[in-house]
Amino acid sequence: MIDLTLALDAMGGDYGPAVTVPAALQALDANPHLHLLLVGSPDAITPFLARADFEQRSRLQIIPAKSVVASDARPAQAIRASRGTSMRVALELVKEGRAQACISAGNTGALMGLAKSLLKPVDNIERPALMTVLPNQQCGKTVVLDLGANIECSSRMLAQFAIMGSVMAQEVLGIERPRVALLNIGEEETKGRESIRDASAQLKADPLINYIGYLEANDLLTGKTDVLVCDGFVGNVTLKTMEGVVRMFLSVLKGQGEGKKSAWWLLLLKRWLQNRLMRRFSHLNPDQYNGACLLGLRGTVIKSHGAANQRAFAVAIEQAVQAVQRQVPQRIAARLESVLPKSD
Amino acid sequence: MIDLTLALDAMGGDYGPAVTVPAALQALDANPHLHLLLVGSPDAITPFLARADFEQRSRLQIIPAKSVVASDARPAQAIRASRGTSMRVALELVKEGRAQACISAGNTGALMGLAKSLLKPVDNIERPALMTVLPNQQCGKTVVLDLGANIECSSRMLAQFAIMGSVMAQEVLGIERPRVALLNIGEEETKGRESIRDASAQLKADPLINYIGYLEANDLLTGKTDVLVCDGFVGNVTLKTMEGVVRMFLSVLKGQGEGKKSAWWLLLLKRWLQNRLMRRFSHLNPDQYNGACLLGLRGTVIKSHGAANQRAFAVAIEQAVQAVQRQVPQRIAARLESVLPKSD
Repeated sequence: MIDLTLALDAMGGDYGPAVTVPAALQALDANPHLHLLLVGSPDAITPFLARADFEQRSRLQIIPAKSVVASDARPAQAIRASRGTSMRVALELVKEGRAQACISAGNTGALMGLAKSLLKPVDNIERPALMTVLPNQQCGKTVVLDLGANIECSSRMLAQFAIMGSVMAQEVLGIERPRVALLNIGEEETKGRESIRDASAQLKADPLINYIGYLEANDLLTGKTDVLVCDGFVGNVTLKTMEGVVRMFLSVLKGQGEGKKSAWWLLLLKRWLQNRLMRRFSHLNPDQYNGACLLGLRGTVIKSHGAANQRAFAVAIEQAVQAVQRQVPQRIAARLESVLPKSD
Repeated sequence: MIDLTLALDAMGGDYGPAVTVPAALQALDANPHLHLLLVGSPDAITPFLARADFEQRSRLQIIPAKSVVASDARPAQAIRASRGTSMRVALELVKEGRAQACISAGNTGALMGLAKSLLKPVDNIERPALMTVLPNQQCGKTVVLDLGANIECSSRMLAQFAIMGSVMAQEVLGIERPRVALLNIGEEETKGRESIRDASAQLKADPLINYIGYLEANDLLTGKTDVLVCDGFVGNVTLKTMEGVVRMFLSVLKGQGEGKKSAWWLLLLKRWLQNRLMRRFSHLNPDQYNGACLLGLRGTVIKSHGAANQRAFAVAIEQAVQAVQRQVPQRIAARLESVLPKSD
C-alpha cells in the first residue's frame, strides 16, 4: 500500500475540532500509510493534539484557515463568502493535488456547491450526488443516492444518478450486472411524481442499465436491488428515518430489563443474549456507515454527518481512504465516458 | 355504546375477500355493537362466510358491487370508470347515511379522489390528507400526515394539514396545546423545499398553532412533536422506511438462535427473553397501527394498507369504529370553522 494524504475540514460539524482531531488521531493509528492535513484555526485545533505522540504528529500538519462555513448558512451565500474557510481550503488542497480527498462534516449545500465549482463534475454529469452503501438483509450491500445534495431533481438527473450508482456497484462492490431501482410510493407504472416516471422511461430505454423498476421504501434493507435512486430530499428523509428507528431499537435493547432485580444468573444470560442481538444489529448502527461520498466529481469528497461523534468521523475518514484506493472518481469517469454520449 | 354500521370495500387490497371477510368476522366478534356492510361480488365474498355463525350473519349484509377499482389504475381514469365498483358503492353508503364510515384497502389515489367528490371536504380544506397516529418513545403518540394522498403539496396545503393534525391531536388524543412540526432535512430556517419554508412562515404567524419549527426524520419516534406534517410522497416513504426497518428487526429477533443446538433450558430462557423483547417492540409492528384516516372530509374514510393481512385489516376496522365514536370529522369541521376564516 502506498502513502496517501487526506485534507480534513477540522472545523466542520456540530462539534468541530473536539470530534475531528481525536478522530484524525484514531485514523492515523489505524492506518500507518495515512497522512492528514487538518484545515482550520490552529488555536482551536492545537489543544486537541495534546495527546498525539511524535509519530502521529509526523504524519499530520495544520493548514490554517481563518473562518468557518456556518452550518445554517444558505449555500449560495456561504459559497460567495467562502474564501479562507476551512471547507474551501480543504477542497483547494484536493484541487491542487496536495491531498487526494477531502472530508467535511460541514454545511452539505455549501460543500456540494464548492466541490462542484472547485473540482468540477465529470463529463455528462450535471450535478454530483451524495451516495452511501447500506448493508442489506441478503448479506449484500445496496448503493443509495442521492442523500441530500440535490433537493429537487429532474428526470435526467435521476437517470444520471442511476448510472453513477450502477458504476459504483459494479466497480467498487464488484456486482456484475447491478440491479437498479427508483424509489417510489408504489410499484405500479402510474405511481409517483412525474420526474420519477420520466426517469423510469429513460432507464428502461438504456441497454447498459439493469433497471428493475420501482421499489418502495420498505424494501430499503431487503436487498431486492443493488442500487436505489431518489432525489436528495427523499433520500435524506429515508436515511434519517432508518437511523432514528435503528437508534430507538438499540436503546431499547440496551436498556431492556435495567433497574429490575433479577437473579445474577438470569442477568448474565440476559446480558449475553443482548450482546448477541446487538452484534446482529450493529452493522445498521449509523456510526458504522457514516460518510456519504459526493459522486460524480473529478475528486473524492466525503460528507460526514454533522452530528458525527469521534468514532463516526473516523469511519468517514476510512471511507475516504477506501474511495482513494479504489479510484472511485477515475473509474466512474471512465465508465461514464463509455456509457454516455460525449457532450459537446 | 350505541350500534354503528360501517361499509367495507370487501374487494380492495392485494388479497380482497380472502382477507377482508375474515377480518370483518373478527371485528364483529370483538364488538357486539358493530354492523358491517360487505360491498363487492357476492360470489367472491360468500365462500369466506362459511365459518360465520348465525349471530355474526345477523350483523352483516352483502351489498353487491359489480366491479373493482384496479390497484394499479391511474386515479383519474379509475374515478371516471368507478360507477358500480365496490369502493364507490361503499363510499356512497356513507354519503347516503346508511353507513357511518367506509374502510378500503384499494387504490389510494382513487379512494382519495372518490371520497373527496362524494363526501366533500370540510370548509377551508382544499384537499384531504391521510393521517396516522404513531407511538413514540415518550410513551405518547404522534399524529403524522400526509401519508400519500397528495404527492405534491403547496405551502397552503401543508399549513392546512398542520391545522387538521393539531385539531386531531387536541380533540382525539387529548393533548392540550399540541406541538406541531414540519418534516424537513435540517432544523435551520434555510433548509429544504420552498413550499416547506413558506408553510413554516404561515404557521409561525398563526397564534392558534403551537408551531415548533422543523424536525428531521430521525425524530419520527422520539416524541419531540405531537404533530408531524409533510407532503404525501415524503410521508409515504417515511412510514414505509420505518415499517421495513421494524419488520427487519422483528424477523432478526424472531430468528435469533434458530437452528442451533442448545440445552433445552437455554432455549426456553432465550424464548422467554425474546418474547419480552418482542412485546417491547410490538407496538411498532406495522400490523398494529394499520389504517390511515382520510382527514378533512365530511365523513370517515379509513385507508388500509393494500398488503394488510387479516389482523391488520381488523385493526383498520377498529380505527373506523374509534373515529366514528370520537366524531373526528365533526370535531375537525367545528374547530376549523372557529380557526379559519369562512371561505366565500
